[in-house]
Amino acid sequence: MLYFDCDYMEGCCSEILKRLAEINMEKNRGYGTDRYCKSAEEKILKACGLSEGEVYFMTGGTQTNSTVISALLKNYEGVVAADSGHINTHEAGAIENSGHKVMTIKNKDGKIAGEDLENYLKNFFSDENNEHMVYPGMVYISFPTEYGTLYSAGELSEIHNICIEYGIPLYVDGARLGYGIMAEENDVTLEYLAHNCDIFYIGGTKVGAMFGEAVVIPNKGSIPHFFTMIKQKGALLAKGWLLGVQFDTLFTDDLYFKIAENAILRANEIKRIFAEKGYRFYINSPTNQIFIIMEDEKIRELKNNVSFGFWEKYDERSTVVRFATSWATAKEDVEKLEKFL
Amino acid sequence: MLYFDCDYMEGCCSEILKRLAEINMEKNRGYGTDRYCKSAEEKILKACGLSEGEVYFMTGGTQTNSTVISALLKNYEGVVAADSGHINTHEAGAIENSGHKVMTIKNKDGKIAGEDLENYLKNFFSDENNEHMVYPGMVYISFPTEYGTLYSAGELSEIHNICIEYGIPLYVDGARLGYGIMAEENDVTLEYLAHNCDIFYIGGTKVGAMFGEAVVIPNKGSIPHFFTMIKQKGALLAKGWLLGVQFDTLFTDDLYFKIAENAILRANEIKRIFAEKGYRFYINSPTNQIFIIMEDEKIRELKNNVSFGFWEKYDERSTVVRFATSWATAKEDVEKLEKFL
Amino acid sequence: MLYFDCDYMEGCCSEILKRLAEINMEKNRGYGTDRYCKSAEEKILKACGLSEGEVYFMTGGTQTNSTVISALLKNYEGVVAADSGHINTHEAGAIENSGHKVMTIKNKDGKIAGEDLENYLKNFFSDENNEHMVYPGMVYISFPTEYGTLYSAGELSEIHNICIEYGIPLYVDGARLGYGIMAEENDVTLEYLAHNCDIFYIGGTKVGAMFGEAVVIPNKGSIPHFFTMIKQKGALLAKGWLLGVQFDTLFTDDLYFKIAENAILRANEIKRIFAEKGYRFYINSPTNQIFIIMEDEKIRELKNNVSFGFWEKYDERSTVVRFATSWATAKEDVEKLEKFL
Amino acid sequence: MLYFDCDYMEGCCSEILKRLAEINMEKNRGYGTDRYCKSAEEKILKACGLSEGEVYFMTGGTQTNSTVISALLKNYEGVVAADSGHINTHEAGAIENSGHKVMTIKNKDGKIAGEDLENYLKNFFSDENNEHMVYPGMVYISFPTEYGTLYSAGELSEIHNICIEYGIPLYVDGARLGYGIMAEENDVTLEYLAHNCDIFYIGGTKVGAMFGEAVVIPNKGSIPHFFTMIKQKGALLAKGWLLGVQFDTLFTDDLYFKIAENAILRANEIKRIFAEKGYRFYINSPTNQIFIIMEDEKIRELKNNVSFGFWEKYDERSTVVRFATSWATAKEDVEKLEKFL
Repeated sequence: MLYFDCDYMEGCCSEILKRLAEINMEKNRGYGTDRYCKSAEEKILKACGLSEGEVYFMTGGTQTNSTVISALLKNYEGVVAADSGHINTHEAGAIENSGHKVMTIKNKDGKIAGEDLENYLKNFFSDENNEHMVYPGMVYISFPTEYGTLYSAGELSEIHNICIEYGIPLYVDGARLGYGIMAEENDVTLEYLAHNCDIFYIGGTKVGAMFGEAVVIPNKGSIPHFFTMIKQKGALLAKGWLLGVQFDTLFTDDLYFKIAENAILRANEIKRIFAEKGYRFYINSPTNQIFIIMEDEKIRELKNNVSFGFWEKYDERSTVVRFATSWATAKEDVEKLEKFL
Repeated sequence: MLYFDCDYMEGCCSEILKRLAEINMEKNRGYGTDRYCKSAEEKILKACGLSEGEVYFMTGGTQTNSTVISALLKNYEGVVAADSGHINTHEAGAIENSGHKVMTIKNKDGKIAGEDLENYLKNFFSDENNEHMVYPGMVYISFPTEYGTLYSAGELSEIHNICIEYGIPLYVDGARLGYGIMAEENDVTLEYLAHNCDIFYIGGTKVGAMFGEAVVIPNKGSIPHFFTMIKQKGALLAKGWLLGVQFDTLFTDDLYFKIAENAILRANEIKRIFAEKGYRFYINSPTNQIFIIMEDEKIRELKNNVSFGFWEKYDERSTVVRFATSWATAKEDVEKLEKFL
Repeated sequence: MLYFDCDYMEGCCSEILKRLAEINMEKNRGYGTDRYCKSAEEKILKACGLSEGEVYFMTGGTQTNSTVISALLKNYEGVVAADSGHINTHEAGAIENSGHKVMTIKNKDGKIAGEDLENYLKNFFSDENNEHMVYPGMVYISFPTEYGTLYSAGELSEIHNICIEYGIPLYVDGARLGYGIMAEENDVTLEYLAHNCDIFYIGGTKVGAMFGEAVVIPNKGSIPHFFTMIKQKGALLAKGWLLGVQFDTLFTDDLYFKIAENAILRANEIKRIFAEKGYRFYINSPTNQIFIIMEDEKIRELKNNVSFGFWEKYDERSTVVRFATSWATAKEDVEKLEKFL
Repeated sequence: MLYFDCDYMEGCCSEILKRLAEINMEKNRGYGTDRYCKSAEEKILKACGLSEGEVYFMTGGTQTNSTVISALLKNYEGVVAADSGHINTHEAGAIENSGHKVMTIKNKDGKIAGEDLENYLKNFFSDENNEHMVYPGMVYISFPTEYGTLYSAGELSEIHNICIEYGIPLYVDGARLGYGIMAEENDVTLEYLAHNCDIFYIGGTKVGAMFGEAVVIPNKGSIPHFFTMIKQKGALLAKGWLLGVQFDTLFTDDLYFKIAENAILRANEIKRIFAEKGYRFYINSPTNQIFIIMEDEKIRELKNNVSFGFWEKYDERSTVVRFATSWATAKEDVEKLEKFL
């Protein structure tokens, strides 16, 4: 059986496994106060082109989103997101559970259009009755998006400038950040991202780490007592160095980007194969997720040999399905896939 | 100046003012344990055709919605509402603040269509990934809606049956219930309502009371410890008899319905006037709220003499405005209005 | 039957009832934007000796405490209170329900001793592990306390100075403020209070109003968007002028203090009677609540004619009971009480 | 430098490290739906003597406590705990953040005495005013406690029977469960525990795992939709098999207990040494935490060579310090420690 279900089906890249084994019996202080977290923070900030800043490590995406968003928002504020945003769909109401509304804008290919955001905020702030409404307190976008699409540098900058204009922070969910940065058509560097938002996270779980996400706060000190809020959310790993050493490894010799590139190469091969075989694409995604409109009969046949994701019904006879690659996808699996199509 | 801004610009109907004065120096026990609350409960249950049940009194709509909804929902559940529902728009995020998502369905004339609800629930419960999503734990509708429209008895029953099918309760926000029941085209009686939902409230603040809403739970005991949850929400009035005596008065000799009728009569007169003068209606509302598409120039002129609500921009030169009547609207004010149009 | 159960058994003082009737059919704008709220705010600020500041009106104590406290605290903070504080005992967990811990200090006669507060804060801030703990984010005291006792001006100032030293606000729950200020031994004026805390409320429900509490923020603008947080908590009365006109009346010609004095005079008479009859006092309370250690046999006998509060078991044969007076307590009721003792 | 700071300074036991490496490139399904979680669940249930039940895996203690407690409690309920309980002291208010009060009973050597619990619940349920108070909705105890002490089988059963009497569940925090079960004087087996509480967790983070806690629900189906609540709390690890394989390993051939024994053996040696050297013990702890009253001068000297925990000031010249052993503590480190004392 071939597996293209998602990008988190394996453990971690070999370099990380090695480091974890090497330091296994070392004695380290807890809660991220160890030297590996320190080193990882320094390397990440350097990779971001930040002379100062803060980096915190957590173990998963929903946890990170929930902790960051509730740390940024005041009681009367909500978070603006695309209706397709992960926080709005597949986090079991984590944001609302922390007391805040997810305020949605209709997505365009998984993204928020700058114009739509501008209109949304303009309408809110010009509404005489807005004191009876939830205030937009921050903007959430994902890069890449849930549909595998990317904001261009220009689009990102536009969103950020609108946020600056309205005095609210921009948060970027980078669960698959590596796959975005390494996409061929992408023009957003890690450094550019770090200078065009107020807080973001670098996803490890889906990009080579065993587990872990690194939250980057470019403006040092901008979230007082973030450590305690992480603890309160149950998001503070006792053995924080497990996260530190993973990101220290990923940000040594550009490993994070090198392994991310594999997912892009494999995805591009798969896209070429689908195109050659005449399949229709549901959306033009330049990263590691490929959305295909497939006839239901073909799906039934294919799933005898290949495991992949069902997205949504397309029409009476067809369904949108998702194929995902990752840092771990083998070239030979792609070749085998071609034979089943 | 004439005022048609909203339906809560005056104190209370004269019968209530009289009763409040009469019992002012009586000594009553607090927190709704007094005889007036008891009597009001009995009268309301009788008016609802319920042999048993429970009635609780609170002081306002947002408070009531927030208390009822958080009492009904489990942690992993949200409330399904029309996108135009008051809880989704003008309650400053009260529902989310209590930890729950408002899950929206696009409104049709302010209402949820039964078919849309059925599809929404069917899609959710057939989704393989729904364990990662917020569960629809109840349905919220308003009667009349925020656009002044009404569910017919058939539509209400359809919604309720869908709720029963999916095992989730139906809650009806009756902030303007009296105006709905007394509307000419309405076929939903109080008794019908009480037998076609799981919990609802009878609005007093907008229908003759000084303040107060009466929550009716037809199925006695279905919300254990509701009293304590009211207290926890800060919604338990110390001098509960102030609410009890008001509803006792409103439900003596059908006063609630008699005074509600005035709003309908006045609204119908205003609608006739607008129609005769050639104004366009934004929506066909049979209750006490009238939505007119008015040219901006006319608005500027009219507001020298008349105060009314601005709803939303309609086009370059026109705006949707709202005129509201109430139990207190004087016939002569309607006659004066005609002259300014 | 005589009633000394509590201080909120009647409606309101005659002056307020008259005003409510007079303006009943006036048309006023909602949500506290009316002229009565404006006038009440001005009179209250003047009575507080404040040249500027803000005043907001809510309908009850738990609601006010919950709204104020959650508006002041950040996510990682809790509120420090005496273990006997109302927010810790009889508000059904309203504070925790809004996400914050009530951090308790053992009370001394219902009060927090300055020394204990100083030690508590010193210990917290010198604890190396405090990043894993709830931060003390504000201090809550009640004046008078739940035991009817009072902070002297010196004690209040001491508490406030400690708060200033640690950079956290002091909030004073004044549910029975009038009875504190009018107590014979009291040396805290309203003006003194307003200058020795960061926020407090003037209780109306228990002191002559039909309902209502007035929150005073001496430092204007110190709680941005407080209005929206009031709305979110369901604490914004639609007909806000009902609260405004009551406080406008209470703060015209010192009415608030004049009617409060009655409770003190009656309480002092009752205390004299109990003392003369040889009863023991559980606590020396200078305000309108009297705590007596009474033999259970006497309680059984007395309650045939007098209604009063049971506080707690004292020993095998005795119980602590509470007698409360109010603005409405009649001198003749006190005389009748004497005969039953 | 010698380290006795805490019991989570190393990675994991060698057997786990080996398994993680072996399965690293296997493809597994996410969110705990893999075969390792299934196998671990079966082995744990068997070790608990449960023919059915449920096991869920999370990554840390605070996260587990917060998720379990908010899943069990209704809105109007709080959790009863010893004042020294971890949830009351060092979880940054995680429980309150989820809306619930921690209701404390004064600890006796870190434990809740059955008599105190009985009195607490009896007082609450006999209080006429309890509808205005937080309901005790469950009991939380830790085994071992935060002071390293243990409930005897008789004490545990007594607590559980009181819970049954009052109809509320008992939850046992087993962050250091292995060290409790392997203590010499302990008479509580895993099977006994599983039959004398309603839910508990088996700590992995402190007992040989790299990270992870296993929540055991003896009564299958007693917490509907627990999976979604885990997700909502950000506590659902995407690569759930990382937890599964660790617990599968720990519960193969009694590994969990074998490695836990090391901590007990080393702690007993340390206790013998301290006793021989004439040190006073702050508390008599039979598990892996040793609390010593040490003169401040000695502390200053010792910490040049040994790292350990500062607990609290004892008197002017002495401090309570903590030495912790673990599955990883080397016998030679104990021998070295002796020389420095």
